[in-house]
Amino acid sequence: MNYGIVIFPPRDVQDLANSFRKRYDPRYSLIPPHITLKYPFQLKERKLEDVVSHLEKVAERTEPFQIEFHKVSTFHPTTNVVYLAIRNEEPVIRLHEQCNEGILYDEETYSYVPHLTIAQEMTNAELNDIYGTLRMKDINITAEIDRFHLLYQMENEMWTVYQTFLFNKKK
Amino acid sequence: MNYGIVIFPPRDVQDLANSFRKRYDPRYSLIPPHITLKYPFQLKERKLEDVVSHLEKVAERTEPFQIEFHKVSTFHPTTNVVYLAIRNEEPVIRLHEQCNEGILYDEETYSYVPHLTIAQEMTNAELNDIYGTLRMKDINITAEIDRFHLLYQMENEMWTVYQTFLFNKKK
Repeated sequence: MNYGIVIFPPRDVQDLANSFRKRYDPRYSLIPPHITLKYPFQLKERKLEDVVSHLEKVAERTEPFQIEFHKVSTFHPTTNVVYLAIRNEEPVIRLHEQCNEGILYDEETYSYVPHLTIAQEMTNAELNDIYGTLRMKDINITAEIDRFHLLYQMENEMWTVYQTFLFNKKK
Repeated sequence: MNYGIVIFPPRDVQDLANSFRKRYDPRYSLIPPHITLKYPFQLKERKLEDVVSHLEKVAERTEPFQIEFHKVSTFHPTTNVVYLAIRNEEPVIRLHEQCNEGILYDEETYSYVPHLTIAQEMTNAELNDIYGTLRMKDINITAEIDRFHLLYQMENEMWTVYQTFLFNKKK
């Protein structure tokens, strides 16, 4: 089965992202707006328990943090994706690294850039149009992040949450 | 904000349900296949913490259980919904009752019947056709249930998981 690990930002960020995704992201209806922590990976049923226990430990040593979406950016020419960029990437990168350790380690072909996709699967011409419009948007939205989710993919390519992992709220 | 409480059955049940939902359920892309424990309800942000703590207690006193989907049924003429029916409804009804207690109490207009919707929003003529076909299906699928989820609804009417609640696995 295919699994993935994501952060769902709070609803105001999701609504903003969806206002773009609806038009520009063909995967709009497969998964809510998210920041990918670990890209889809195959997992045997029997390893699931160990993965969950690994992710519980990651969440346990992470404190809630704030991120600030501050502009629209693109991965072009590497790939034709347009996304909301994050000003302070460090806490998300740290989470990504921990989600890719131990039992979950996979060699990575690209360096990881935290992002929230709002447009993808475009031709170069479409990208020029869309990015040309979206890059002018004034993006300035802050989000409190205090959890992440392990998801699995159904046969129809849509995703379901398997489990939430809450960060450690030190009082 | 609108919240809801559901059980996502394991993927094999979801894939089966989606094979029908894809054609017959206009809400197919809004939420993965699920058993509703509590219908959408409004909740003020400031009450969320108390609701989460209530649901943690409910999960803590619930042990994992098995359910058996055994036939296709309908709520017609009350409402034109076709669903996978559950043979042993008791553990799901008990969960529903606890999800509707204390801070989450709402008066209910219908008596609660656990079900997994596979078709809805049809005219009577469509329902006759669809139910006529689906009721002949040989449904016999067992599912282990060990968690439920609190969800919120985004502006576009799609749902995101806020938190998973794991049942108490006595070793």
